[in-house]
Amino acid sequence: MDVTVYKPALTLKKQLLICLIAIITICKPGNLRAQTDSIVYTDAATLYMSGKPFNTVNPYQRVDTARYPALPAPVKRLLTHSAGLAVCFTSNSTSISAKWCINKPLAYANMTTINSQGLNLYVQKNGKWQFAGVAKPGNKKCTQALIVENMEKGDKKFLLYLPTYNELNSLEIGVERGCTIKSMPGAFKKRVAVYGSSVTQGASASRSGLAYPAVLSRHLGYDFINIGMSGSAKMEPAVVAMVNDVEADAYLLDCIPNASVQQIKDRTLNMVMAIQKAHPGKPIILLNSISREQGFVDMKMGATVIAQNRATDSIANILLKKHTKDFYFIDVKNFFGDDHEASTDYAHPNDLGFYRFVQKLEPMVADILKKYF
Amino acid sequence: MDVTVYKPALTLKKQLLICLIAIITICKPGNLRAQTDSIVYTDAATLYMSGKPFNTVNPYQRVDTARYPALPAPVKRLLTHSAGLAVCFTSNSTSISAKWCINKPLAYANMTTINSQGLNLYVQKNGKWQFAGVAKPGNKKCTQALIVENMEKGDKKFLLYLPTYNELNSLEIGVERGCTIKSMPGAFKKRVAVYGSSVTQGASASRSGLAYPAVLSRHLGYDFINIGMSGSAKMEPAVVAMVNDVEADAYLLDCIPNASVQQIKDRTLNMVMAIQKAHPGKPIILLNSISREQGFVDMKMGATVIAQNRATDSIANILLKKHTKDFYFIDVKNFFGDDHEASTDYAHPNDLGFYRFVQKLEPMVADILKKYF
Repeated sequence: MDVTVYKPALTLKKQLLICLIAIITICKPGNLRAQTDSIVYTDAATLYMSGKPFNTVNPYQRVDTARYPALPAPVKRLLTHSAGLAVCFTSNSTSISAKWCINKPLAYANMTTINSQGLNLYVQKNGKWQFAGVAKPGNKKCTQALIVENMEKGDKKFLLYLPTYNELNSLEIGVERGCTIKSMPGAFKKRVAVYGSSVTQGASASRSGLAYPAVLSRHLGYDFINIGMSGSAKMEPAVVAMVNDVEADAYLLDCIPNASVQQIKDRTLNMVMAIQKAHPGKPIILLNSISREQGFVDMKMGATVIAQNRATDSIANILLKKHTKDFYFIDVKNFFGDDHEASTDYAHPNDLGFYRFVQKLEPMVADILKKYF
Repeated sequence: MDVTVYKPALTLKKQLLICLIAIITICKPGNLRAQTDSIVYTDAATLYMSGKPFNTVNPYQRVDTARYPALPAPVKRLLTHSAGLAVCFTSNSTSISAKWCINKPLAYANMTTINSQGLNLYVQKNGKWQFAGVAKPGNKKCTQALIVENMEKGDKKFLLYLPTYNELNSLEIGVERGCTIKSMPGAFKKRVAVYGSSVTQGASASRSGLAYPAVLSRHLGYDFINIGMSGSAKMEPAVVAMVNDVEADAYLLDCIPNASVQQIKDRTLNMVMAIQKAHPGKPIILLNSISREQGFVDMKMGATVIAQNRATDSIANILLKKHTKDFYFIDVKNFFGDDHEASTDYAHPNDLGFYRFVQKLEPMVADILKKYF
């Protein structure tokens, strides 16, 4: 038997009070792991993204490679990876979740899937960008995950780094029902294009926020644009033309590890000159090659890096002796220290390697850039 | 038509010379990647292994858990993992290869498969253990891989670290045909049993040689026995009895991160007393919990570690005030530094985390052990 009980209509004031209590109750920290219905998702494509070389049709790709038909096939493929991109937003939610779909699950033995196809969140706290959590991918195309919970209440600024070694097809960011999520442009001022190898792309950081261009962005406040292309940074004319189209305030060239000695001799000068011509008055910083940690015991590998750096140093010295305007050279060969523990495999820096690299590189790059910015 | 040509018999001297040339030609560095028929494999079970808590039926397991029926099921499973074990051998080969089979390919999002189910080689050079290479596993049970080539000629000492998060079923080590491979006992003197959590087991080092017990062994020259058991180091009586059966010269207890506050209060004192009773005169070193890097923004997680450490510190202080013989306590809570970049996920140290941890822990442990050894 149904019983209908008459309730007097609530006053507007009471209705608003109940609504407010409901919002406060729902938008409270803790115990939300299983309560996915209390999470509201926002399409990340509607939020600002840092680290973009260009505006693109797929917002999570770095370059619309259809615009550059002459690019080598591996370069085209690698530029679909979302390396270095970070969604920038503010929210007063005490938890952050995500739903995302990658192109194809593909684990690399020398990196975590958190880095290659997962997500890495930072939050600003006490005026610094701080690690806030990661989203672990499953061995499938689409994953849903809670990244962090139990944060302090109030408005907070976030950076969500995207997969370094996979193509991201969709991303939604979840906050607690009743909480805000807003696009946040302007986290970084000035743009520094970084053209480089797998090391630039982020191999083998344990999570995407520890790839060195991402770390430099957070530390220096500039947007270091990741144009890393694993194994394929060889300064081909078509690639130089594409890098040259990236509108940036400075250019960092970290492409020596992938190039043969002959390619270094044939192409480095051309690349520097092409950028200088297209972007007069903007600093161009050339790095030589980091050591390959296995090169300390594999004599042939060790000799290869020495030859690459001899060729690079020689070209850099010619440019420096000519007092080439706005050209700078940084010798990074010993930036990994001398214990040979800074790599995951034969060459790719682990987080210790990236840390040591940034410790040395950052003040040198900062000194150059502050002359211009 | 066959033509038979008469050849005079070679003198013994000439025969030996040809044999020597053949050996030198075959056992030369380089270009062996594809020449698997020129690689001779040795069953690693015939070679000395460091890091073993006990002799076991399966040489690549740490404990014959059938001997300990009361152990919790996850502990039994984790003790089948070959964490911390290293095959010790000498060889004059300039390349080292491996064939190995694991129980079941199983990738964890927060670690590389090089660490969980691959191999990591070190070689002694200039009197130090140096990184020599890794063997990357395929996404299958059995893999064959070249680990390093083009090394210097002559006799060399090697350590080959086994998978940290998988069960190893077989392992063969390959050297060039005509080269030697010999078992090498005695790389480490004295045994230090390390009972601990996933951090002890090796999560999330990028390769097995960077798990902290392995690093301490190479740096201090003692055999740090890895009794790490991911998420399951909770000091249950059956586990304490098993750890107590490990014949060691010192005991390092790093089990606080996995235990609840109540378990810490109920069990820590019992564990210390049980080891002291069974191994009088041997040092017992208790660590409290490292910080969980996400605990800086996840207030609940941060509070949990503070509560675990308050309980641990209190028990340690009681023991220290009583001048408990051979008991030592190390406060590790700030060993990760203060930038919160030392983890791969919410808690597990990345290689930067392990590096910072060892930088602080090693001199303190060394100071204690040198009173005894």
